[in-house]
Amino acid sequence: MNTRYVANLLGHLFMVLGVVLLGIVAWSGLQILSGDESERYPLWAFLIGSIVALCSGGLMTFVLRPQTRILGRREALLLVAGSWIVGAALAALPYFAWAHISDNVPAAGQFRSPVNCYFESMSGLTTTGATILTGIHTIPRSILLWRAMTHWLGGLGVVVLFVAVLPSLGVGGKKLFRVEAPGPEPEGVHPHIRETARILWMIYLGLTVAETLALRIAGMSWFDSVCHTFATLATGGFSTIDASVGGFHHTLAIDVIVIVFMVFAGVNFGLYYQIIRRRFSSVWRDAELRLYLAFLLVGSVIVVLTIFNSPIHLTNGDVCPPSIGEAVRQGVFTTVSIQTTTGFCTADFDKWPFIAKAVLLLLMFVGGSAGSTGGGIKVIRILIAFKVMVSELERVFRPNVVRPVKISNSTISPELRLGTLAYVLGIILLFGLGTGLLMAFEPVGQIEITTAASASVATLCNIGPGLAKVGAIQNYAWLTDASKLVLVVLMALGRLEVFAILVLFVPRFWRNA
Amino acid sequence: MNTRYVANLLGHLFMVLGVVLLGIVAWSGLQILSGDESERYPLWAFLIGSIVALCSGGLMTFVLRPQTRILGRREALLLVAGSWIVGAALAALPYFAWAHISDNVPAAGQFRSPVNCYFESMSGLTTTGATILTGIHTIPRSILLWRAMTHWLGGLGVVVLFVAVLPSLGVGGKKLFRVEAPGPEPEGVHPHIRETARILWMIYLGLTVAETLALRIAGMSWFDSVCHTFATLATGGFSTIDASVGGFHHTLAIDVIVIVFMVFAGVNFGLYYQIIRRRFSSVWRDAELRLYLAFLLVGSVIVVLTIFNSPIHLTNGDVCPPSIGEAVRQGVFTTVSIQTTTGFCTADFDKWPFIAKAVLLLLMFVGGSAGSTGGGIKVIRILIAFKVMVSELERVFRPNVVRPVKISNSTISPELRLGTLAYVLGIILLFGLGTGLLMAFEPVGQIEITTAASASVATLCNIGPGLAKVGAIQNYAWLTDASKLVLVVLMALGRLEVFAILVLFVPRFWRNA
Repeated sequence: MNTRYVANLLGHLFMVLGVVLLGIVAWSGLQILSGDESERYPLWAFLIGSIVALCSGGLMTFVLRPQTRILGRREALLLVAGSWIVGAALAALPYFAWAHISDNVPAAGQFRSPVNCYFESMSGLTTTGATILTGIHTIPRSILLWRAMTHWLGGLGVVVLFVAVLPSLGVGGKKLFRVEAPGPEPEGVHPHIRETARILWMIYLGLTVAETLALRIAGMSWFDSVCHTFATLATGGFSTIDASVGGFHHTLAIDVIVIVFMVFAGVNFGLYYQIIRRRFSSVWRDAELRLYLAFLLVGSVIVVLTIFNSPIHLTNGDVCPPSIGEAVRQGVFTTVSIQTTTGFCTADFDKWPFIAKAVLLLLMFVGGSAGSTGGGIKVIRILIAFKVMVSELERVFRPNVVRPVKISNSTISPELRLGTLAYVLGIILLFGLGTGLLMAFEPVGQIEITTAASASVATLCNIGPGLAKVGAIQNYAWLTDASKLVLVVLMALGRLEVFAILVLFVPRFWRNA
Repeated sequence: MNTRYVANLLGHLFMVLGVVLLGIVAWSGLQILSGDESERYPLWAFLIGSIVALCSGGLMTFVLRPQTRILGRREALLLVAGSWIVGAALAALPYFAWAHISDNVPAAGQFRSPVNCYFESMSGLTTTGATILTGIHTIPRSILLWRAMTHWLGGLGVVVLFVAVLPSLGVGGKKLFRVEAPGPEPEGVHPHIRETARILWMIYLGLTVAETLALRIAGMSWFDSVCHTFATLATGGFSTIDASVGGFHHTLAIDVIVIVFMVFAGVNFGLYYQIIRRRFSSVWRDAELRLYLAFLLVGSVIVVLTIFNSPIHLTNGDVCPPSIGEAVRQGVFTTVSIQTTTGFCTADFDKWPFIAKAVLLLLMFVGGSAGSTGGGIKVIRILIAFKVMVSELERVFRPNVVRPVKISNSTISPELRLGTLAYVLGIILLFGLGTGLLMAFEPVGQIEITTAASASVATLCNIGPGLAKVGAIQNYAWLTDASKLVLVVLMALGRLEVFAILVLFVPRFWRNA
């Protein structure tokens, strides 16, 4: 294992983060110049973060010069795991520094605990969107911008950037990309990884510009538009106010724009590449896209049907009288937000009937498409697992008939079949383990099973809000540090597709062989 | 599909049931002669049941003469599913008849609903032991004997009998046995099925005699000894009193005897066959046996450690002050009872701390060994699934190293690997589905998630008692009919290893091809 080279590459990542943080310092400075006194402390916090990132990154890059520059599969896995685990610590530094240099700022108190900082930072970089903050509108804007930025960087993210940058350093970016690109197969992606990564990056950037403009036109401020766009396209979910998207004067246009871009963010980005290449028919015939849209449609219909004859409690505190229009709006928004694993809220769905909550909980497990910024098991895996289960059922009474499992005319290999079932099972077991640990780590009477289970799936599948005490209008601040660390691990496991983290615990992974 | 032949064979089963019911009629008559007036109505009920069974069985056997006598795999599956689904209806008849011919017998009122009768009957034949009865000591003894008998028949049971009987009819018993013998591989079983079935039957009978004598000597009446033996060896769990095994004057000897025989019942019966053939080393080296005992040991230790410093509530209403001795006794009894999927209770484990309940819940999923009368996923499948998951983890960073998955020196085939993961996943999905349906079918506020989830696993894995409102000192009577039918389906699914029931819903199963 060439750990020296991995550390060297991590150094590059730190320096990139340092430069981004310098950008925030500059923006914060501009705010002060335009009279925003609350930015005084954050400016110093970001400066500290930036200096630490640049210095440590510089040391690792220039002092730890590796003997060989060969990036094997194991090195790539270690690099990916390392970037998120250590990267989140670095990204948490501004929060921590801000809390400890600013006196008499009540909002900063929430970041005094290093666990809280790491939780918020990991939640950002993994595009989960679970927060320990309340009174978010009282937090300085540069902190909120950085918080949204962690989403955006994490989103398609840090590693697609690395796929574009690393090859120019002569590094095998392909292996990295295969680990990072969520989903079992990077199907339909241009074989030249460096070129592809650049195109994906441009698509991501294009969508960012488009949504920002749309939200601005719909009435959001530039600042809110940018932050919510970052959170939407990364399927993150951090907002700039406690009431989330529901806090913008109940503007229909904003809800619709966010819905549309959440749906976009949950689609395999390889399909946008196909659209650019004008291969429309292959997009339309894509089995995963169809199933993804079908899940969203059927889920929305069921949710709407269960809530249309009751008053709906919005996250801004208002209560809407029963109406079909409002039910459709809130039902669709919530379903899309949950399944794409964004986690924006406009309505307090914790008050909805059991059936609606059960559907939302199921969709949490499903998640977005492979190759999207969404989390969860991924639609394509659900499709493969379903087909494998049916074929196993048939094998019971026709053991000698070998019928290949196919998706969009391509046969699913036996390895992928086993791997997919193992993955789905792994997610379910981790979900159970997480639930159990939360129940065990919280004082008796502080937590019940609904809260624990929904917190577990909401972090493992990178959604954000869960049910009950971690529901739409709640947050994660009240949990013990032990529980928060469990959730941090779940977020990383979910985002890095489980195995990239779990391999670190296999002794053979570290041995040369 | 040769449905005519399947119906013909079902006829044989009905006639066997009819004869057993006639035996109960005779026993009931003897009770009346010795002065037990409460047996007057049950005698008629059993006579009705017996006549219906013999007549319908006779008709199906002698009128429905099939053209061909070929038992294919699909016919065998249909026969197995049919014997449990229709057999349970027949076995429920005496309950129903008794309730409707006896007036002014309060206890009989519980069987007025046909759903209740079918629930109790299916719970017996699947060796689940979930009951809808309270005031069990007020129920006539012949009814309780029949209830225990359904366990015993179901246990190794009806179908092993059929494996011994069918071959003499020139029927392919092997296929049947492979479907029925729980577990992925009928390893270590003599190849001559008919002979093997007879030996298994003798072992079962021998264990029955041994436990009955032991319980009698320990102080139980003959009647209670027989009933509890039936329930122990089938890993069923029906008792003759509400307080279950905990209601016999807190007799240590009884608890120890029941613990020992529950452990025996959860062992692969093929191993007893090995012992008879003096192959002791192959028994000792058996990977599943070792893991089974390890689960019991570790589970017991954890449970004991969590309960030893609190008072323990017994099922008979007593409260024991904290003591190591009592904690060991109750902890071991409960752990063994739950993991072997028997479901006898001596203590109200619902009052135990979360960790103890979590361990018990996990062991519910594990269950007994393959080829035992126990339910659950089965220890060998847990072992295979674990090894497959680890090997999948290794494949992430060493995709080109093919390391075979081995258990006791034999390689697990790729088909078995996939099949095992599919099975485990199937159980978990059915568990989730069952939980969701119970939540949906009960009126709002009547049920919470702990009750629903534990009822789902307690029936799917054929244990009996769950937690909260279906806990150790509770029962299933309060559920709606819809929920009871869901649980009935779960019991059948669990007992027949899921696929034997699920295939009935695959259209291709019914098509000739």
